[in-house]
Amino acid sequence: MQILKDRILRDGQNLGGGILKVDGFINHQVDPALMDACGKEFAEQFKDVGATKVLTAEISGIAPAVSTALHLGLPVVYARKTKPITMPDQVFLTLAPSHTKGRTVELIVSPEYLTAKEKVLIIDDFLASGATILGLARLAQTAGARIVGIGALVEKTFEKGREALQPLGVPVVSLVAITRMEGKTIEFKE
Amino acid sequence: MQILKDRILRDGQNLGGGILKVDGFINHQVDPALMDACGKEFAEQFKDVGATKVLTAEISGIAPAVSTALHLGLPVVYARKTKPITMPDQVFLTLAPSHTKGRTVELIVSPEYLTAKEKVLIIDDFLASGATILGLARLAQTAGARIVGIGALVEKTFEKGREALQPLGVPVVSLVAITRMEGKTIEFKE
Repeated sequence: MQILKDRILRDGQNLGGGILKVDGFINHQVDPALMDACGKEFAEQFKDVGATKVLTAEISGIAPAVSTALHLGLPVVYARKTKPITMPDQVFLTLAPSHTKGRTVELIVSPEYLTAKEKVLIIDDFLASGATILGLARLAQTAGARIVGIGALVEKTFEKGREALQPLGVPVVSLVAITRMEGKTIEFKE
Repeated sequence: MQILKDRILRDGQNLGGGILKVDGFINHQVDPALMDACGKEFAEQFKDVGATKVLTAEISGIAPAVSTALHLGLPVVYARKTKPITMPDQVFLTLAPSHTKGRTVELIVSPEYLTAKEKVLIIDDFLASGATILGLARLAQTAGARIVGIGALVEKTFEKGREALQPLGVPVVSLVAITRMEGKTIEFKE
């Protein structure tokens, strides 16, 4: 997706250690028009998978997931990383290592909003090692739901997340794929 | 706003202690079409305040703030509650008591995205005691920015947040205002 690639080249920053800073348009400051365009693109690519719900993880997955869900006419659920007092005692919970946080985080979804009837489209900002997305997939599977697709704004191919997701047997779509980051150079898959 | 009021009456739940559960459409599961309608309404109400940026707090402010910002053609910044590794060492930080978490949380914004030139529209999900919104206002003021308006999806008038915000001297808009919650009864301001 050219506008996302252009934006990463203009405002993204390689912080080293495989970390791409996108705080100016995805993660801390958000460009709503860009997120809307990305959501529209995901909706187009996943229009035939029969999804009934979009699933993401707080925090940075929320903007692209809500936009995708709006264009598909679906509700979106974001997995919480801490259990709020409004959630029932019995929840779906899994652990996922967080690359950018350097620790393991909890992913929690209430059984009220994820049931065996759902066909789940997972949307997140990054596909790196795939750990967060695999965590979301485990939550969906624990609920008895079916996963029908996975979308990420930015894939870092050198972290092999796509291979990790392959056993799920569902279409994996990234809007841009970065093959190499070195110094100021960010290379994309054509 | 009638559709939000209707949704609260249908799917909201008074958990007691002043806590309204809206996990089914705002806070954990999100109804993107409802958030889009709310954002459109905020954009209409704040179209003449000259805002250059929308400011909110993670996590539950993100969906309504992104939607509002999309309809106003503005970027949105969400204050983080933990400092990510992508953020510079020098940040704007304030503390705000969280009603639903029963503890004080940090609100952190990078100086990269909040400057003295900005005219800030604050958007959040709830206006209860006003503590979170006052925290966001302090961040904006510390940056030297001007606050030009405040919007909340749901006001709980009995927690007196509107009075707490009055010294800021800016328009405060809530899309629905709850005057009383008792058992299954939720009463709205006409």
